[in-house]
Amino acid sequence: MGWKLVGKALIGQSGGPTAVINQSLVGAIKEARRYKKCFTGVLGALHGVDGILKERFIDLSAQDTKTLNLVAATPSAALGSVRHKPTPEECKRVFEICQKRNVRHFFYIGGNDSAETAYLINQLGREAGYELRLIHIPKTIDNDLRVTDHCPGFGSAARFVAQAFMGDNLDNRSLPGIKINVVMGRHAGFLTAASALGRKYADDGPHLIYVPEVAFEEAQFLRDVENAVKRLGRCVIAVSEGIHEKDGSLIASKFISGVDAHGNVQLSGSGALGDYLANLVTDRMTKVTGKTPRVRADTFGYLQRCYPGVVSEVDAQEAFEVGRHAVRFAVSGDVDGSVIIRRKAGPDYAVDYGLVPLEQLAKHTKSMPRRFINRAGNNVTQAFIDYALPLVGQLPPVGRLENASV
Amino acid sequence: MGWKLVGKALIGQSGGPTAVINQSLVGAIKEARRYKKCFTGVLGALHGVDGILKERFIDLSAQDTKTLNLVAATPSAALGSVRHKPTPEECKRVFEICQKRNVRHFFYIGGNDSAETAYLINQLGREAGYELRLIHIPKTIDNDLRVTDHCPGFGSAARFVAQAFMGDNLDNRSLPGIKINVVMGRHAGFLTAASALGRKYADDGPHLIYVPEVAFEEAQFLRDVENAVKRLGRCVIAVSEGIHEKDGSLIASKFISGVDAHGNVQLSGSGALGDYLANLVTDRMTKVTGKTPRVRADTFGYLQRCYPGVVSEVDAQEAFEVGRHAVRFAVSGDVDGSVIIRRKAGPDYAVDYGLVPLEQLAKHTKSMPRRFINRAGNNVTQAFIDYALPLVGQLPPVGRLENASV
Repeated sequence: MGWKLVGKALIGQSGGPTAVINQSLVGAIKEARRYKKCFTGVLGALHGVDGILKERFIDLSAQDTKTLNLVAATPSAALGSVRHKPTPEECKRVFEICQKRNVRHFFYIGGNDSAETAYLINQLGREAGYELRLIHIPKTIDNDLRVTDHCPGFGSAARFVAQAFMGDNLDNRSLPGIKINVVMGRHAGFLTAASALGRKYADDGPHLIYVPEVAFEEAQFLRDVENAVKRLGRCVIAVSEGIHEKDGSLIASKFISGVDAHGNVQLSGSGALGDYLANLVTDRMTKVTGKTPRVRADTFGYLQRCYPGVVSEVDAQEAFEVGRHAVRFAVSGDVDGSVIIRRKAGPDYAVDYGLVPLEQLAKHTKSMPRRFINRAGNNVTQAFIDYALPLVGQLPPVGRLENASV
Repeated sequence: MGWKLVGKALIGQSGGPTAVINQSLVGAIKEARRYKKCFTGVLGALHGVDGILKERFIDLSAQDTKTLNLVAATPSAALGSVRHKPTPEECKRVFEICQKRNVRHFFYIGGNDSAETAYLINQLGREAGYELRLIHIPKTIDNDLRVTDHCPGFGSAARFVAQAFMGDNLDNRSLPGIKINVVMGRHAGFLTAASALGRKYADDGPHLIYVPEVAFEEAQFLRDVENAVKRLGRCVIAVSEGIHEKDGSLIASKFISGVDAHGNVQLSGSGALGDYLANLVTDRMTKVTGKTPRVRADTFGYLQRCYPGVVSEVDAQEAFEVGRHAVRFAVSGDVDGSVIIRRKAGPDYAVDYGLVPLEQLAKHTKSMPRRFINRAGNNVTQAFIDYALPLVGQLPPVGRLENASV
């Protein structure tokens, strides 16, 4: 079989790393090896587009299988990642470097910003009449990419969050109090909602869940907490870092002024939102009960995205497959696009993989559908559990003593 | 064989829970079952001394083995825990209730405060001429109990911290910046030092480690960070929540005013210390480099002590054994005391168990020996790694790509 498009493949990783982003990298490398006549070499760009601009490449075809298998199981981006969004001039420079190096396939692993970068570079190739195939390989812990049923990286982060709340609920049950945990996810509530996945007994926490898809009202929040404490004598609360007021202004923006290269407010890496909410709750409960309650806040922060040893097997396998399928789609014909995961109908969880135009995932993100959130806007529904549980794999079993009072 | 002392056994759990405190509970219950002629029943006190004072007991002899096995593997105190330190009057009441219920053996699982409570109750029994054996079963994630080589609960918390830093180091390597992680441990640096246990490559973080055993000097800290960034272009830092200035005043006390029932400053459940240090570093690096660095702080908080699925097998087994040995010591004769773990000499890790007088562990705590800390006071030594590594078990393997530049 003769390949129409023969040249180098280039792979890069971009955005916040995940526990399984290297599965996608290795899936692509291993699959590319099967098409040696199509790919005259496989380059890895160090730190994404930054590495391309500085022409910092490593030879991915030279890596031995043992190394690749170990890297696949290692969290975070083995090539290095980048948050830099290239300017139009830089996109042009990236394109020129690809042309100079005879790169014919560029596989970019990242979120919606990376899909947009891929789209822009792809357009430059079209305009210049140089065939440069762009395949975007999805990754994000936020699960906020459009079109795809879910996103590689989410399942493992969701597993970390679910287990964290299982442990914290047990901790809180043993030493009762009010506990607030701030979860990542930017403007999408999926990861915060995953806090519910490990609930087993009727009184298990989290008892309240606040996601960015519902406007956050402090008065209602405080009433919710008060009611939960009245009912259970304790309360575990999951709060998304991206909660905002009715007018859209982030609660976190009251304390945090930094923005990243994409112009996004820096939400993570600070405990300010949790501390603020804990103070609100302390004041309210002190007023109501006349004594100072035990209130604590934890901000899970970066632990959520690269924790080794807490990885969803389903997620790891799917991340490998989106990488592998990216290469398969690339060699199948004149295609560009974003790899997506499609969930098959039927009682058992099963997926297949597709390719959609880059612009469908670029720029915009996805939020949780309203049917995943309860009517009161302070918890998740069974529909969410049914959607997310297959993605995290079997959670550690926990149990209680039989309550034989004497 | 006839038992001199026949009556009920009572078991309670106290203090901050751990991932393996239920192993000790189940170890004691299972062993007590073997001596039915000695123990006419096994009571569990709900929420430690609080449960005894309110006479809230459950029947632990009635639990089936399947339940016990599941509970053993479940983090946090299945009986409920307590932070309340009983007054002399309450100790007296606890003793009277034991007497009334014909309790002859009281097994109390907890830290040094629990050892002290056990000692006080034991003294009341002696004064009253009522034989009440008190056995303290050690638990703490801080590893700050005296006499014992190490403490059940520490290994699993250390494993959580080690893995967290492995992931965070990989994250930081992929998206370079300055990252500060605040670790639990109160006045002992063992848990913060455990951040080093997953280091594999020469440039792996944490690059700086600050423990409470060395006075924290902000100026030196900032110089250390600046040097690390100059050398590596990034820096991962482990900071104990208990760091303090030369005069002994806690850095955290600048922001936190709460104290618990034992009069201890509330160190956990707030991100203030991490945020404070991050601001210090941001200001300094901005001054030095002329641009705003990427600085983030995470406070690991309560995740460290009850995270399901991240448990050291060695720790779980030893926690079970201290519970089992507590009962064995109790039935061996007229003894009271604290169970300790002794490390055997020799190249391979091995331990046995002993019993020492309660007052040896009560009240005072243990710090890290100076030989576990490097001369500069900003890292750990190989002696610490050798001490702690066997306690956490095998850590997840991680790897890097071979750097074949092209």
